[in-house]
Amino acid sequence: MKVTRRYSFSASHRLHSAQLSDEQNREIFGKCNNPFGHGHNYILEVTVRGAVAPDTGIVVNLQSLDQVVRDQVLTRYDHRNLNSDVPAFATVPPTTENLTTEIRNGLRANWPPAFPPLERIRIYETDRNIFEESVS
Amino acid sequence: MKVTRRYSFSASHRLHSAQLSDEQNREIFGKCNNPFGHGHNYILEVTVRGAVAPDTGIVVNLQSLDQVVRDQVLTRYDHRNLNSDVPAFATVPPTTENLTTEIRNGLRANWPPAFPPLERIRIYETDRNIFEESVS
Amino acid sequence: MKVTRRYSFSASHRLHSAQLSDEQNREIFGKCNNPFGHGHNYILEVTVRGAVAPDTGIVVNLQSLDQVVRDQVLTRYDHRNLNSDVPAFATVPPTTENLTTEIRNGLRANWPPAFPPLERIRIYETDRNIFEESVS
Amino acid sequence: MKVTRRYSFSASHRLHSAQLSDEQNREIFGKCNNPFGHGHNYILEVTVRGAVAPDTGIVVNLQSLDQVVRDQVLTRYDHRNLNSDVPAFATVPPTTENLTTEIRNGLRANWPPAFPPLERIRIYETDRNIFEESVS
Amino acid sequence: MKVTRRYSFSASHRLHSAQLSDEQNREIFGKCNNPFGHGHNYILEVTVRGAVAPDTGIVVNLQSLDQVVRDQVLTRYDHRNLNSDVPAFATVPPTTENLTTEIRNGLRANWPPAFPPLERIRIYETDRNIFEESVS
Amino acid sequence: MKVTRRYSFSASHRLHSAQLSDEQNREIFGKCNNPFGHGHNYILEVTVRGAVAPDTGIVVNLQSLDQVVRDQVLTRYDHRNLNSDVPAFATVPPTTENLTTEIRNGLRANWPPAFPPLERIRIYETDRNIFEESVS
Repeated sequence: MKVTRRYSFSASHRLHSAQLSDEQNREIFGKCNNPFGHGHNYILEVTVRGAVAPDTGIVVNLQSLDQVVRDQVLTRYDHRNLNSDVPAFATVPPTTENLTTEIRNGLRANWPPAFPPLERIRIYETDRNIFEESVS
Repeated sequence: MKVTRRYSFSASHRLHSAQLSDEQNREIFGKCNNPFGHGHNYILEVTVRGAVAPDTGIVVNLQSLDQVVRDQVLTRYDHRNLNSDVPAFATVPPTTENLTTEIRNGLRANWPPAFPPLERIRIYETDRNIFEESVS
Repeated sequence: MKVTRRYSFSASHRLHSAQLSDEQNREIFGKCNNPFGHGHNYILEVTVRGAVAPDTGIVVNLQSLDQVVRDQVLTRYDHRNLNSDVPAFATVPPTTENLTTEIRNGLRANWPPAFPPLERIRIYETDRNIFEESVS
Repeated sequence: MKVTRRYSFSASHRLHSAQLSDEQNREIFGKCNNPFGHGHNYILEVTVRGAVAPDTGIVVNLQSLDQVVRDQVLTRYDHRNLNSDVPAFATVPPTTENLTTEIRNGLRANWPPAFPPLERIRIYETDRNIFEESVS
Repeated sequence: MKVTRRYSFSASHRLHSAQLSDEQNREIFGKCNNPFGHGHNYILEVTVRGAVAPDTGIVVNLQSLDQVVRDQVLTRYDHRNLNSDVPAFATVPPTTENLTTEIRNGLRANWPPAFPPLERIRIYETDRNIFEESVS
Repeated sequence: MKVTRRYSFSASHRLHSAQLSDEQNREIFGKCNNPFGHGHNYILEVTVRGAVAPDTGIVVNLQSLDQVVRDQVLTRYDHRNLNSDVPAFATVPPTTENLTTEIRNGLRANWPPAFPPLERIRIYETDRNIFEESVS
């Protein structure tokens, strides 16, 4: 069974790659390259996959999951500027693709051994743009 | 092609396992263990998978699917107390994990032979908690 | 300016009036009168109306508002059975109309004097049923 | 990584199959067979699957994707009558199953070689009816 | 107290006014003037305003309200072509403004005397276009 | 009749008032005062109120309304940093209260004389925080 829990956080970013010229940055990122940045209400879905325990009838304790997500995601990204506040985005552009990978890596590296496996994370940047990465 | 149809029903439950002590129940289920229960507007998604019939252009007749879901799910769970009204939850706690399995089993056991296969069911307990089980 | 903040809570209830016969209860409340009750994910909107303070640029501090709503609403109703856990519903049926009035009265009686006036509360019982009461 | 982008368009259709009798059409399609048709606000999700480019941090340029979807989908279906305005539906009924296949075929046949592969399309006919087809 | 209930129906229309030239129609209505029409999933909100009855705790019986809306709205507009199926739109264009007025008039003229007053109707043509008319 | 149209834009901001000490800023704005800011997907609703024109059946031409909102709102705020990119927020904090007033003032000052009156604007900062101001 797959169990998914949704979280939300608000952050700002500017899409700009140090590996590209200013002109290329403007061409590729358009208004997302505006110099002072912009922001989003991101929605994060974390999915775990496991068996239902016969005595409790649950796959994972959601309070415990919340604690992991709070430590690894919300305290790091919520009400933050991704470019300035998150070390990983000092060198790579804080696209939602890279944010998805960064969150996936952070959760995977700190996943409690007692938990059922992390299956997938999905981030809604806006109602229209959705990014998803499996964990394997 | 996968065709998914959404249904909704309102029910109440109390999470409590007879296999656990009162203290364990409170620790694991938290406020969901409150003695008189609480409730949710559940959303159910039923997904079938099949070929599109050349003459009708459909995979499954949704009126027929509605009839099956009405008989197997809505009349049993809508505006009910899962603990008191559903025999299966006399012995196992009515977590949404177990509810998902129970609904999946009920649909699978009563699935019309003429229907394309039932692929998956998904239940939204709240906007934030989503449970999904494949049928195979 | 009107500022509205949304909250959610999950509760169960059975619609049954001690002033009506069993037959009348079944006729008026239908499946909402089922003996063991059912439940909902309620959404509560609290609206205040006031001027924007020139120094802070805000109408009301939302953290302070959250504290009031937590004390007066969420700790009393969230993950509760309205009939059994809420004294007010020992004598009147816990319809969402009466719940709206009860919450309005509780907020009004405990409204901090420093706050801008409470303007209105609105409750979504489901996506389809919405109840709203002004405060005056 | 999977990247999904949502689009919307409004169209009308009448479900009627030339391969069926009038009575069969009414029986199978019900009110969807009403002679003058009806309509929907369709939501289309287009999913691509690919690697994140190290320099840009993106999987696909969404402005470029928008251009393809505009040419192949929106200019053909938005504010149109599927039966009368879309040649493909002169011979097959414009069910959302067939619409899904038609859009998938149009995107696949005109998919820019430089793009990461088209993975899946999904169409919401209403909030309750969802159709999904993989591309392979 | 205001009680609002939501309904949905799917219909098609073509915006075209017999009082305007073809060129004016195209200029004013744009793609909504396309000759074969298009359609929407309309959402209708019906709001009544009244006192809460002390014995039942309700403002209006929603099953009774549903019956009125079914007779006056859903059977007339759901899965219909507004231009061809609704007599009122033989002479005025079926804009959602006119549809709102038409539904308001139909409800008002057939409003059960025992009901609390009809306060307002609101129609969502799409997620972005909302029309509202008070009843007085 | 009231006609409402929804728009969306993404922007970043930092809540900080030059009239308050750093400690007061942190106390009042909490994490919204984080030094590098954060952001939101704002939703804007613009409501006009007017009579339905008998020949066209509309209250206001939505394409014309879109043009005004594009000029006065979207080009100024979308994908911008409110603190750095919007002159008005050089001196007052870019709370959503002040943003609402700023947008209202901009629309009111540039409202086409031929338009029906602007009635109200509403901004959703997140799904939970909603700000509304009448125009009179």
